[in-house]
Amino acid sequence: MRILLVGAGGVGTAVTRIATRRPFFDHMVVADYDLSRAEAAVAPLDARFTAARVDAADQAAVLGLLTEHRCDVLLNATDPRFVMPLFEAALTAGADYLDMAMSMSHPHPDLPYERTGVKLGDEQFARSGAWADAGRLALVGMGVEPGLSDVFARYAADELFDEIEEIGVRDGGDLTVDGYDFAPSFSIWTTIEECLNPPLIYEQERGWFTTEPFSEPEIFDFPEGIGPVECVNVEHEEVLLVPRWIDAGRVTFKYGLGEDFIAKLRTLHELGLDRIEPVTVPTEDGPARVSPRDLVAALLPDPAGLGDRMHGKTCAGTWVKGTRDGEPREVYLYHVVDNQWSMREYGSQAVVWQTAVNPVVALELLATGRWEGSGVLGPEAFEPRPFLDLLREYGSPWGMREQ
Amino acid sequence: MRILLVGAGGVGTAVTRIATRRPFFDHMVVADYDLSRAEAAVAPLDARFTAARVDAADQAAVLGLLTEHRCDVLLNATDPRFVMPLFEAALTAGADYLDMAMSMSHPHPDLPYERTGVKLGDEQFARSGAWADAGRLALVGMGVEPGLSDVFARYAADELFDEIEEIGVRDGGDLTVDGYDFAPSFSIWTTIEECLNPPLIYEQERGWFTTEPFSEPEIFDFPEGIGPVECVNVEHEEVLLVPRWIDAGRVTFKYGLGEDFIAKLRTLHELGLDRIEPVTVPTEDGPARVSPRDLVAALLPDPAGLGDRMHGKTCAGTWVKGTRDGEPREVYLYHVVDNQWSMREYGSQAVVWQTAVNPVVALELLATGRWEGSGVLGPEAFEPRPFLDLLREYGSPWGMREQ
Repeated sequence: MRILLVGAGGVGTAVTRIATRRPFFDHMVVADYDLSRAEAAVAPLDARFTAARVDAADQAAVLGLLTEHRCDVLLNATDPRFVMPLFEAALTAGADYLDMAMSMSHPHPDLPYERTGVKLGDEQFARSGAWADAGRLALVGMGVEPGLSDVFARYAADELFDEIEEIGVRDGGDLTVDGYDFAPSFSIWTTIEECLNPPLIYEQERGWFTTEPFSEPEIFDFPEGIGPVECVNVEHEEVLLVPRWIDAGRVTFKYGLGEDFIAKLRTLHELGLDRIEPVTVPTEDGPARVSPRDLVAALLPDPAGLGDRMHGKTCAGTWVKGTRDGEPREVYLYHVVDNQWSMREYGSQAVVWQTAVNPVVALELLATGRWEGSGVLGPEAFEPRPFLDLLREYGSPWGMREQ
Repeated sequence: MRILLVGAGGVGTAVTRIATRRPFFDHMVVADYDLSRAEAAVAPLDARFTAARVDAADQAAVLGLLTEHRCDVLLNATDPRFVMPLFEAALTAGADYLDMAMSMSHPHPDLPYERTGVKLGDEQFARSGAWADAGRLALVGMGVEPGLSDVFARYAADELFDEIEEIGVRDGGDLTVDGYDFAPSFSIWTTIEECLNPPLIYEQERGWFTTEPFSEPEIFDFPEGIGPVECVNVEHEEVLLVPRWIDAGRVTFKYGLGEDFIAKLRTLHELGLDRIEPVTVPTEDGPARVSPRDLVAALLPDPAGLGDRMHGKTCAGTWVKGTRDGEPREVYLYHVVDNQWSMREYGSQAVVWQTAVNPVVALELLATGRWEGSGVLGPEAFEPRPFLDLLREYGSPWGMREQ
């Protein structure tokens, strides 16, 4: 297997550090808009890795790189703006494709907090026929959430439940960063996108619908000492992926943002600082067209570089409620990463490491033929057991709590 | 009297609309960085007004304009960044100078929330000798707050009290803006500057010292139906001006920001969005160096243009506590502007109109010789009675409440 990894940020760099320990692939080209980032990622690794420069928005350039390096698969580790050009470049090149976030949504023009507009992944699923016809696979949403959370959902449906009333992904942690009032542990660009878009809910009778941001607050008790965290609905891929393959009465995603973070995001929104569309700002060199969200991101520390100052754990998981043998059952399937462990073992902070390990496991399953498929598929379209077993083999166990 | 008005924003434009009704001056040149703003201000007025383009930071250009138009006085209606170049240009030209905010402060490098660093106006007062030697007057802080609030303080000291324990400027209102979640009624640039800098307090025994932003919250009951508003300490010129001329045990300034506005300002600060120093942001035209505070200002509606959607009143005033004839006494001297009135009468919203009327009154007192002086002086250096009487003549009465 020859891999083109696009994006050498926090997650991309962690992908390389995890992959270098595994023999399943022959070559990995690490490409970034900033060549020095790609070179820095590759420098300490084995000879299978090479660095390249690429603009992820430039489909022709990505196609050129796939062809030049004879890559079988493109792994997209950029932000969601670049999903479509990378996805299309892979199809044109006859390569498989994996990402960790799906093509972007656009709210309903009149009823943004009731009805869906363009949903997450709609643009990708619309191309499923073309991928199937080409006999190629686009495995979408294959990080930790979406990704491992979807594998957990499929595992619950296959092995733990007869009937499922609700599947609710619940994400929380107790990470703190020394020396910062406010230092998100994940890309602020993506965090704003998922938290401020109208959150999506799926119900068997209503289909998909949206609500106001931060709706349905609940306190969820996270395992391994993290404890209770306030979680609210946010827009997330699992709500779109799970119902396509799994029979469940309701699907939700709640993010343990905590009160303070929610208040900050609300303020960013009320001031228009979450906007992507550029505004004109006077600068010393004359007026510039600046995306407010890009400025917010530029002001915050790079989350990938905060690992040394971070303490605590992050938990991703899937809570499932239903019945087994006529009895009610409720479980939480989860994966916890302790920042101290991920920093010591991989030099990567917990949240980016947790995101990065899952696509590497998936690539290994594809490389070894244990997973196969064509078309545009989510992680729940595949057998969950091989994935969950291989994740353990990567030194990163998952757990289950009966509630 | 020939006047150069620099700045044709909300306050500058209101200055021209107020001044056009008064005969005391011969000519007013209205200059702005954006010539079209100056032209728009001047268009509906009488022949005494002309428009010009000027960069307020360009001292030589301002000097050229003062000389060309043979101006006796420069009225600065720009933001505090431009105080020093305009102040120096006026001195060089041999003109008098008025502003509504003083030269900027810089926090103490080690103990920003205890000790003062460079205080508001320090740079201007350092030049007082040069102004006195030239026989010219720089009347600084001559808007509503500072400005009218300082006149009130002097009036209280002269006519209402024998001894003054505390002088506390208190600013509040009940203005709302239809159709906006968040639309400050005054320049956000200046609001951030005064609210996020360490607030200043004066005590006779300690001198000037600073505290944490938003310190000493208190509920102050504003007159004319506005009612109680939560007020907090902010950095303001009165605290620096009043003790130079008036004997008072303590001087404070509290701003009725309200909880929600305070929370938003705190968030802007925690995210670094209040910073003036530019950061590098990627744009479609390559990296740009952008001041975060300028971006925040660019996102918000121009407060001067919100008058049509605004409702309510704004109140500026000075609360004084002390003794008279051996008896304790407490008064609040205040000036309330109803937005409906200022829009109908002048087409200017309440807050900018209230700021603008005071320097026009002061200019008239100077033109007619009722006020005179040289050096760098605050409003409390002059007889308060003529000012307070003339303000009434402008159709804008002030009030006094015994508490």
